[in-house]
Amino acid sequence: MSLLVVGSVALDGVETQSAVRERVLGGAASFFSVAASFLTTPVRLVAVVGDDFPAEHLAFFRERGIDLAGLERARGPTFYWRGRYSADLSSRKTLDTQLGVFEHFRPQLPDAYRDAELVFLANIHPSLQLEVLDQVRQPRLVACDTMNFWIERTPAELRRTLARVHVLVINDEEARQLAGEHNLVRAARAILSQGPHSVIVKRGDAGALLFHEHGVFAVPAFPLERVVDPTGAGDSFAGGFMGYLARAGSLAPEDVRRAMIYGSVLASYSVEDFSLDRFRSLTAADVYARFRAFKALTQFEDIALA
Amino acid sequence: MSLLVVGSVALDGVETQSAVRERVLGGAASFFSVAASFLTTPVRLVAVVGDDFPAEHLAFFRERGIDLAGLERARGPTFYWRGRYSADLSSRKTLDTQLGVFEHFRPQLPDAYRDAELVFLANIHPSLQLEVLDQVRQPRLVACDTMNFWIERTPAELRRTLARVHVLVINDEEARQLAGEHNLVRAARAILSQGPHSVIVKRGDAGALLFHEHGVFAVPAFPLERVVDPTGAGDSFAGGFMGYLARAGSLAPEDVRRAMIYGSVLASYSVEDFSLDRFRSLTAADVYARFRAFKALTQFEDIALA
Repeated sequence: MSLLVVGSVALDGVETQSAVRERVLGGAASFFSVAASFLTTPVRLVAVVGDDFPAEHLAFFRERGIDLAGLERARGPTFYWRGRYSADLSSRKTLDTQLGVFEHFRPQLPDAYRDAELVFLANIHPSLQLEVLDQVRQPRLVACDTMNFWIERTPAELRRTLARVHVLVINDEEARQLAGEHNLVRAARAILSQGPHSVIVKRGDAGALLFHEHGVFAVPAFPLERVVDPTGAGDSFAGGFMGYLARAGSLAPEDVRRAMIYGSVLASYSVEDFSLDRFRSLTAADVYARFRAFKALTQFEDIALA
Repeated sequence: MSLLVVGSVALDGVETQSAVRERVLGGAASFFSVAASFLTTPVRLVAVVGDDFPAEHLAFFRERGIDLAGLERARGPTFYWRGRYSADLSSRKTLDTQLGVFEHFRPQLPDAYRDAELVFLANIHPSLQLEVLDQVRQPRLVACDTMNFWIERTPAELRRTLARVHVLVINDEEARQLAGEHNLVRAARAILSQGPHSVIVKRGDAGALLFHEHGVFAVPAFPLERVVDPTGAGDSFAGGFMGYLARAGSLAPEDVRRAMIYGSVLASYSVEDFSLDRFRSLTAADVYARFRAFKALTQFEDIALA
């Protein structure tokens, strides 16, 4: 199935206890599309970059088989985000945000993109997410992300978006905030009543939970000996998730479960280096090897108690 | 296999946002033995209670098929602990601890207990844990718990205990403290180098991880709509874990995985009510039903990528 993503392509400044990276490739749509590219090509990328955006990043996208017909190049600076992580990488502080060309971004889908079957609306203004939905004809699955900023500032617009998406992909604190409920099971149920048939709650190193009408599926985070940079883990998860569904050409429950695992696989790789750097050397064989490792990590056999 | 537990039997005061319970049944060995009793009987309980310990609790232990030959009754008050949970139940503050008869507890194993095949040393002074090990002949598996207090105050004694146990069952913060390492994979490796062949890291609502020489096994926490009282969840986990091994009569890797699931099952039930109250109505059928639910929660099928 064809896969479309709309969201930010950015330049990031990232500070951790051990190192600092300046103006490296970032943005939700970058992580999403490159992660997804290990499972499906082409990923159609709708985003905007400024005239300072390095050509090498465009080349990297192309090498990964990403379709750049929907990547607008505008005059002005590329969206810039700078953040600093705590020593244990469990929290971060935003030090700077410069919207640049992203401020006036109005996603325009090339005609060829309007038949997209799978659509991921990364974290942007919910009204822009709606504008994208108005441009796609009959998607089979629409997933979206959002953040505390929109939950607080644009609740009405966000409600309208939620009413039109099938899957909300969100982190645990945002799920709690959106639902006004600390317990994740009850929070998920409250969100499901707003439109989506499924909610994926990302919990960082506690893994991810998929809540849907018929039950729950849980995936642990892959236990990693070395986490370098958590930036983009959630978007890489979404990329692995949607990328697998695109490849499978199926939304059957067993494929959605496998998609959750592939999401966790891509998220786990993304944090092993700064920016998208781990993806530069990653292979499809690596991706499948870690899928198998997830099986070893989680699977057990039933046995009736005597 | 025969199962022995040494630890505290206590009276607890528990405060949550919604309710307060006074002098209810508590203590690590209580949660452990009752949880284990859903999988194996008799559980041999070595502990001490005071002359104020209600007869109804003894009757409850007996109903659960717990062997009380090793339960000492001493003059004085039973160990008392009082704590208050935060509104979201994610943290707690100890308000009062009165050791009572526990202060001079020196575990004495009845002769019939000395051939125990499975031994759980709940969280007590590491020197007492060692005294117990000196009294058992040839256990097939020894597991122990500990806490920040012993890690800080009695590191040398704790090291001697760790050198003689096979499995350390510990929460994530304690694992980090014991290893002096935030990353759990590296922390677990550091602990494994001190003696145990396995470390089980309990992470509350993030589930549990089993680290051993050959790999890692991860279990999510069961998603619960209503958590009433987290007290004793970790000890209930240990009871389900060791109880299943006792029932299976096996320490094979596939049984250790199932034991991790049964640990999670019993932990998930224990938090559904105050004290050990959920265990009063729980049945073996409930336990197996939730084991099956864990399968639905976590299992997926492999499929080779085309």
